[in-house]
Amino acid sequence: MQTLSVELPERQYPIHIGPGLLERGELLTPHIAGRQVMIVTNETVAPRYLERLKAGLADYTVAEVILPDGEATKTLASVERIWDALLAHGFNRRCTLIALGGGVIGDMTGYAAACYQRGVAFIQVPTTLLAQVDSSVGGKTGVNHPRGKNMIGAFWQPKVVINDTATLATLPARELSAGLAEVIKYGLIRDEAFLGWLETNMSRLRALDDEALSHAVRRSCELKAEVVVADETEQGVRAHLNLGHTFGHAIEAAMGYGSWLHGEAVGAGMVMAAALSARLGWISETALQRTERIIAAAGLPRHAPAGVEAERLLELMRLDKKVLDDRLRLVLLQALGRACVTDEVADTQVRELLVGWPRQ
Amino acid sequence: MQTLSVELPERQYPIHIGPGLLERGELLTPHIAGRQVMIVTNETVAPRYLERLKAGLADYTVAEVILPDGEATKTLASVERIWDALLAHGFNRRCTLIALGGGVIGDMTGYAAACYQRGVAFIQVPTTLLAQVDSSVGGKTGVNHPRGKNMIGAFWQPKVVINDTATLATLPARELSAGLAEVIKYGLIRDEAFLGWLETNMSRLRALDDEALSHAVRRSCELKAEVVVADETEQGVRAHLNLGHTFGHAIEAAMGYGSWLHGEAVGAGMVMAAALSARLGWISETALQRTERIIAAAGLPRHAPAGVEAERLLELMRLDKKVLDDRLRLVLLQALGRACVTDEVADTQVRELLVGWPRQ
Repeated sequence: MQTLSVELPERQYPIHIGPGLLERGELLTPHIAGRQVMIVTNETVAPRYLERLKAGLADYTVAEVILPDGEATKTLASVERIWDALLAHGFNRRCTLIALGGGVIGDMTGYAAACYQRGVAFIQVPTTLLAQVDSSVGGKTGVNHPRGKNMIGAFWQPKVVINDTATLATLPARELSAGLAEVIKYGLIRDEAFLGWLETNMSRLRALDDEALSHAVRRSCELKAEVVVADETEQGVRAHLNLGHTFGHAIEAAMGYGSWLHGEAVGAGMVMAAALSARLGWISETALQRTERIIAAAGLPRHAPAGVEAERLLELMRLDKKVLDDRLRLVLLQALGRACVTDEVADTQVRELLVGWPRQ
Repeated sequence: MQTLSVELPERQYPIHIGPGLLERGELLTPHIAGRQVMIVTNETVAPRYLERLKAGLADYTVAEVILPDGEATKTLASVERIWDALLAHGFNRRCTLIALGGGVIGDMTGYAAACYQRGVAFIQVPTTLLAQVDSSVGGKTGVNHPRGKNMIGAFWQPKVVINDTATLATLPARELSAGLAEVIKYGLIRDEAFLGWLETNMSRLRALDDEALSHAVRRSCELKAEVVVADETEQGVRAHLNLGHTFGHAIEAAMGYGSWLHGEAVGAGMVMAAALSARLGWISETALQRTERIIAAAGLPRHAPAGVEAERLLELMRLDKKVLDDRLRLVLLQALGRACVTDEVADTQVRELLVGWPRQ
């Protein structure tokens, strides 16, 4: 087991990484407030891991909420189900919520914890690669709204994160690829050496080599933690984590949430961001090709979905919360391993890129 | 105009107090982020004050949500109306929400601001005495749930609070009395001299004497700020602010929210807390009588509502979030002007008090 400490201004919390951690109750219990524990999970994850997690919590009053699987579930109505269950069980403000599942479960459970009686303790047990490398660090929680992704939410930090890499063995290949999109992102935005390591080890990762997975998860969490600690409330460098996301959110919204996986949309979005960076002369054609190659090697789409007009994508990008005072703010690349934020790109340049972009 | 500065660990914000401040846009504009302003108010307050507030905001894109009046509106569904309106107007994360109204409007608007795109700027313009002395300071926001009051919410601080004492002139007498309950509470929990001033000046306050009102609002905000700054997340001394509230919340819940005003329930609840303190021998009969007299002088009920069983109240008190790990935690008085928190009172003592308590 490896342990990383995320040092926030007001406190720190550990991320444990390794195979078989799910059943090790002694990793959880030091971080549980009170005696009441609510596990939130979904219909796919529950049959695999719920009882194993509960086995380590024999000394607590444990209740659970099992939601449907998928991004379409990430609504305020689902969070209300969690609040209703907490109140139905008479859980007080010293209860602890545990998210067991992917990013959707983590985001909803974190938000439920942030607002239940104005804030209760929260633990993450992510069971997808995306959630292990993305949701583990940063404290972003929330739900989607019919008009936009993650429009309702809060910043709320976990007490501990348990990244059990063995849970990735049951992950569908498509979801593993979606997680690799975020892993690649960390390399693109701030660590060219890690990007090189990924180019060399991509097949080991896709074959679920445990040593490779542990390294990728650990380095990703470290890189994200560096960014988040430097900028906890997203005023500056933290925006780099959104590389590919403004394009990606637009794709997701255009297709209806849950049709493309988040990581797939971000994968295509990162290629678009790299292409725009190349058009502006910031990165070379070679760098763009390396970006396209690693995205493809991870099994991710490089093209936009068929049947979506450029104008519609642009409109959705403008609705994304990265728009500040009517200027489209984009995260682009100044080099492989170095991201930047700009609001200097004209809408016409983005439109041109989107019009000419290959469709699937 | 008087100005009080609330000094929180991470930042400070001003509270302006005086007549006619509503129209002074220059008090608001330094605290407005971006160019988009959403005013949230209700059907009673809007016809009186909405246009006057908007007159000072001519340079901004201003939209509004007008909700029904009353505690029954304080639901997640109302907050969703605010979020829907923000998204329908395309408001981004640099927008500012202004709460124009009483505590219900302030609590809902603050919660909407806390969670819209994970947090946007928020300004309070409270138009009831209760909201001016209670909601102005402390950052508590939220909504009720069918199973309990304020069960869903967040801590979220305003950028500025505008307490226009002239707005109190249109307040129904019953609501003025409800506000006076919280004013009296500050005297009871930490300032016997202020309690003495209130005993002398209660008739001036109820006659809306502007000088007396300004002093009462200012001293109340100061006392609350002292407590909140010492304890922003309610681990210790802040619990004193709940004097009368565990009893009061049970009365409100038993009657259905909106039947008794919050301040009325707290008024009766403070007499119950004082009576329990007297039974424990912590305060004298004379102190209990002073408490009963000032509550009566403010036009507040001292009795529990008719037709509510002691057992039902006790059950509701136990659901209140002041219950920690199954022990009923109560705020009681060690003297007039000195509160304390205790979990040493047995349920049987509370039951005895409630069984014998006069009903209206």
